[in-house]
Amino acid sequence: MAGNSFGVQFRVTTWGESHGPAIGVVIDGCPAGLSISEDTIQTQLERRRTGLSSITSQRKEPDKCKILSGLFEGKTTGAPIQILIENKDADSSAYDEIKDIFRPGHADYTYHKKYGLRDHRGGGRSSARETACRVAAGAVAKELLAACGIEVFAHTVSIHFVRAETFDRAVIEQNIVRCADPDVVEEMIDSIHTARKNGDSLGGVVQVEATGVPAGLGEPVFDRFDADLAKALMSINAVKGVEIGSGFSATSSRGSENNDNMTPGDPPGFASNNSGGIDGGITNGNTIVARIAIKPTPSILNEQSSVNKDGNAVMVRTKGRHDPCVCPRAVPVAEAMLALTLADHVLRNRSAKA
Amino acid sequence: MAGNSFGVQFRVTTWGESHGPAIGVVIDGCPAGLSISEDTIQTQLERRRTGLSSITSQRKEPDKCKILSGLFEGKTTGAPIQILIENKDADSSAYDEIKDIFRPGHADYTYHKKYGLRDHRGGGRSSARETACRVAAGAVAKELLAACGIEVFAHTVSIHFVRAETFDRAVIEQNIVRCADPDVVEEMIDSIHTARKNGDSLGGVVQVEATGVPAGLGEPVFDRFDADLAKALMSINAVKGVEIGSGFSATSSRGSENNDNMTPGDPPGFASNNSGGIDGGITNGNTIVARIAIKPTPSILNEQSSVNKDGNAVMVRTKGRHDPCVCPRAVPVAEAMLALTLADHVLRNRSAKA
Amino acid sequence: MAGNSFGVQFRVTTWGESHGPAIGVVIDGCPAGLSISEDTIQTQLERRRTGLSSITSQRKEPDKCKILSGLFEGKTTGAPIQILIENKDADSSAYDEIKDIFRPGHADYTYHKKYGLRDHRGGGRSSARETACRVAAGAVAKELLAACGIEVFAHTVSIHFVRAETFDRAVIEQNIVRCADPDVVEEMIDSIHTARKNGDSLGGVVQVEATGVPAGLGEPVFDRFDADLAKALMSINAVKGVEIGSGFSATSSRGSENNDNMTPGDPPGFASNNSGGIDGGITNGNTIVARIAIKPTPSILNEQSSVNKDGNAVMVRTKGRHDPCVCPRAVPVAEAMLALTLADHVLRNRSAKA
Amino acid sequence: MAGNSFGVQFRVTTWGESHGPAIGVVIDGCPAGLSISEDTIQTQLERRRTGLSSITSQRKEPDKCKILSGLFEGKTTGAPIQILIENKDADSSAYDEIKDIFRPGHADYTYHKKYGLRDHRGGGRSSARETACRVAAGAVAKELLAACGIEVFAHTVSIHFVRAETFDRAVIEQNIVRCADPDVVEEMIDSIHTARKNGDSLGGVVQVEATGVPAGLGEPVFDRFDADLAKALMSINAVKGVEIGSGFSATSSRGSENNDNMTPGDPPGFASNNSGGIDGGITNGNTIVARIAIKPTPSILNEQSSVNKDGNAVMVRTKGRHDPCVCPRAVPVAEAMLALTLADHVLRNRSAKA
Repeated sequence: MAGNSFGVQFRVTTWGESHGPAIGVVIDGCPAGLSISEDTIQTQLERRRTGLSSITSQRKEPDKCKILSGLFEGKTTGAPIQILIENKDADSSAYDEIKDIFRPGHADYTYHKKYGLRDHRGGGRSSARETACRVAAGAVAKELLAACGIEVFAHTVSIHFVRAETFDRAVIEQNIVRCADPDVVEEMIDSIHTARKNGDSLGGVVQVEATGVPAGLGEPVFDRFDADLAKALMSINAVKGVEIGSGFSATSSRGSENNDNMTPGDPPGFASNNSGGIDGGITNGNTIVARIAIKPTPSILNEQSSVNKDGNAVMVRTKGRHDPCVCPRAVPVAEAMLALTLADHVLRNRSAKA
Repeated sequence: MAGNSFGVQFRVTTWGESHGPAIGVVIDGCPAGLSISEDTIQTQLERRRTGLSSITSQRKEPDKCKILSGLFEGKTTGAPIQILIENKDADSSAYDEIKDIFRPGHADYTYHKKYGLRDHRGGGRSSARETACRVAAGAVAKELLAACGIEVFAHTVSIHFVRAETFDRAVIEQNIVRCADPDVVEEMIDSIHTARKNGDSLGGVVQVEATGVPAGLGEPVFDRFDADLAKALMSINAVKGVEIGSGFSATSSRGSENNDNMTPGDPPGFASNNSGGIDGGITNGNTIVARIAIKPTPSILNEQSSVNKDGNAVMVRTKGRHDPCVCPRAVPVAEAMLALTLADHVLRNRSAKA
Repeated sequence: MAGNSFGVQFRVTTWGESHGPAIGVVIDGCPAGLSISEDTIQTQLERRRTGLSSITSQRKEPDKCKILSGLFEGKTTGAPIQILIENKDADSSAYDEIKDIFRPGHADYTYHKKYGLRDHRGGGRSSARETACRVAAGAVAKELLAACGIEVFAHTVSIHFVRAETFDRAVIEQNIVRCADPDVVEEMIDSIHTARKNGDSLGGVVQVEATGVPAGLGEPVFDRFDADLAKALMSINAVKGVEIGSGFSATSSRGSENNDNMTPGDPPGFASNNSGGIDGGITNGNTIVARIAIKPTPSILNEQSSVNKDGNAVMVRTKGRHDPCVCPRAVPVAEAMLALTLADHVLRNRSAKA
Repeated sequence: MAGNSFGVQFRVTTWGESHGPAIGVVIDGCPAGLSISEDTIQTQLERRRTGLSSITSQRKEPDKCKILSGLFEGKTTGAPIQILIENKDADSSAYDEIKDIFRPGHADYTYHKKYGLRDHRGGGRSSARETACRVAAGAVAKELLAACGIEVFAHTVSIHFVRAETFDRAVIEQNIVRCADPDVVEEMIDSIHTARKNGDSLGGVVQVEATGVPAGLGEPVFDRFDADLAKALMSINAVKGVEIGSGFSATSSRGSENNDNMTPGDPPGFASNNSGGIDGGITNGNTIVARIAIKPTPSILNEQSSVNKDGNAVMVRTKGRHDPCVCPRAVPVAEAMLALTLADHVLRNRSAKA
């Protein structure tokens, strides 16, 4: 069974390859009566587009979305919503030479082994271009969440050894690394420029948050909110780790330190948020906080040793157009995946009580 | 939609509460013709049982499993396999006083908010007792995997500030913390004893691995092997983080350092394993390596401030019988979740090619 | 992927074989706060039990149900509900001689081909004994429906050539064939007795209805209410046809005759019910009406020609204890499947609007 | 949860409205390495197109399909296959006057009640135009089946009171009613012409068959092959009944008459096919035979009484362009649904044995 769908009740299926004629997503399960528009979706797509700064890929894709179904007089009808984005600037020539070669850190070898053949042009289905579809669907999910008072945002908290120390939400979208600490922005940008100049790439950490989330979302014991969120975030290209709340740092703390004491009120509150807003797999009303580990882009200009389809040794450089650090553009993608997870669980939770 | 099932083709559904008459699991999708027995399952359940050492809960559950269906003359028939485990040593009296109180770090408040009522006895459905069912189902999955040459194991790599530095697989099951570094075992045990004495608890990290995994498992772009594994592991009680391969440490490395160069051969090999055996969401034939962050047990004897159902301030101590550190008993549970994920994807991969 | 679950949001998974130690069903997705009891379930199981009249199998099963989970102080908790029924009167000796023989009209050959082995005792998993689990789960579904004002019932409308001509709901449960026309009851019973005496069996038609169903249930274009109901009913042993409303008779009518004109009101009404309460796959508020074709029981004492596992010709008589006509006991089973379909769609419909 | 997907492993999701810019289908789970082309799909779409004969709707849709993803150098890659069909001849003006009126026998009222709003243009999502997507996906399924030696076909067996008495497969596609009995073709056509002239419509029965089906397909006890096929066929617009093999006629037969005796051989055979190729929910190797009851098209020119959105009485005539009898164009749609069911179960069956 193939796995190109996410969500149970707010269910998205993405399709399309990096260098095919188009990519897209169909949303099945968006409730009727929600106001959406191509403009709303376009605004989110713009945040993920390439070619907008010195630290992203120079591929020039307009990423114009078209809503082909599910909308009538500006409102969702309950029918599937198909959103299509044409590929306009695919340049497959750079990929001819890797047709029979497996690039280290890429999905070349694994797709070849799994399917017996692969569309090598621009990484085909494994390209991060697919994440545009997630952002488009996430834009619809965000509209559904907004109607419930839920807001989602993300920001870069570290790139290589440079870490944000302060948080000012207002500055996130004002700098090209999307960092909430204005004091480290230049250093982050410099480190990316240096890496690119050296034919190399960098990793980093992105934090994603949601405010206004009601207590009660999540379906134990397997479709817990944290479990579904971990899947959502780990399914993003280049992500190798997910932590929620205090995450890995909780492993070196004591229960008396890590427990979030509850405070009186209606609803009650919490004296801290080590839980990241989730207890026992169900949201507790506190802010959702998760972080993802993004590995350095595997595409680097430096020569690396690898093998070809015959299993023989080859040297390979990755040409094509790539981001030397994925974090800034991963911000809207991580937001989208959190928004999709929330939208799905908001609907699922409608059946919790008789 | 409720979420007590895991897996698509090898699908398990667990049921039962900590202090109900029994718990159990039904496996739907186990192929016919596999030899299994209650003994095989019992062996795994014994590894997770309480009351076996000084650092686990003193609840005395025999955890005897009964296979009620799906087996004929020692072989699976393709029909659902129901495994039942009776609860023999539930003592609900310790929980009477928390009936109307929400314990910090527990699921008391969130279950109450989600469902409007909760079975407070021993944590009800949110108790880690449920993981016995995962271990039972995982034992069946392990048999399916063994027939494919796949082996799964796990071990504690850190408890609080004590970290394993060396790896000797042979010693894992010979010490009560299940650590592969014999030199730190005593220190780990001491730190747990100290925490318990202080009415406190500790967190830690468990690493889970699988060898003999063929290249090709995983279903991009959402049901990637890493995404499904992240969900599987994050769904375990007390887990707050999952990382694969180099994980969060990859975020401070360069592409030239983190990429696993490929080496000639049939099949080709890898010069390193920063990927943790997964590229582009599909297994690459290398060993699967993942780590989980386990928070300190929320149940502590120290008094904490919280609220009751009316939202008023209360002080609460957690009585009942608990593990001061979950890691040792999380080892078989983490193995089970990796085994269930592998079994599911082994079957799913049967449809990859025409 | 195996198929022992039904429903998406109100999801039941049955397990167990005719001659194993027990059978059962786990319900995942029953909302919290619903009052249920073993008594309520037992009442429905009694209606399906064998050995209660001269026209059913003489197997004596008490069919006592035990609720093992998901219930707390008489109310559902939102956790999975496991219902277990022990097998008490299995007599496998009658089946030894068909161990290597395929009975005509049975699932012996197809299970053997699919799974490579089969539990031949009492038909194993393919036995209609499994339908007790459906009735148990259906009893819970009926409680959920009752809270919405929906009521489900069924009755035998024909046995062999004897057809009901009138309808008096009050008499259905007062006769052993469960027919709503008292004038044909004796003739139906006589025809069954005659068939049994001749070592033969009879088919018939059962009609199932639901009143109080709100307009709006069903999820086009595939999970339409009629489509899911057709699956539900066709999944019952021995059913070979399903029709809704005017069904096959609509094929020889004109649009002007078959269309149900709408009548003014709030909500509006219908001048007829050829639709069986479903238009465009969605319930329209009218009574749901469906009929199922039940083939004559394949188990007959008359000798038939068949083959054994080696493909050689054999003669076979079906011993064991069987119903000469399934219709009377199919009534509660058909009700259960309609109730399960309704419960699932009531919950699914909660997400139709934003 | 919405329901626009069909199949578990060979999973199709259709989208689009009758008068929107386009309709389409995404197939997730088609194995890699299958040769397909737009031509193959187009051939099937041509069979379903309108405007080709005197007895179908006069809407002129070229129904040209474009494959937007999942194909590389003529072969499937294992990635989702998106097939898009533009709407070229939508004329919404005829529908303006029914904007606030519910047509009898249509989905107008039920969509309005379920979703709170509806796209009234050409029936929106409830239009049979959606079945073009099923035919497109079915064409891909047929290629997968052809590689397994399975062939699917269908034919009209009755229209109103005119019934086929003989069967000559060669003539089916040579007449515009797609009937296998050349002697009744003219009478069928005449009856349709008469109905249209009278502003009325007719129903009929279509039979669908599959040859070369191996024993073993179907997943008891709920996803039985017959149950999934019943759902597949009942989900087609205007279908009100499904029967398999001897179907409803089995209800007036005896077990000794209806059982299909088995005949020696390797594999063994059957002396008859009352089962329609399915025993115990699993295919037995015999030809699959099912029939569907198609109601007379609800769209008729004759005036009917109905209500408007305010619940007040109105008279309504259905303008727009419609088929006076759906059967001929239902033939390729029914084939598609059987092909999709078979493709799904061929893949599902790959996990039956260890």
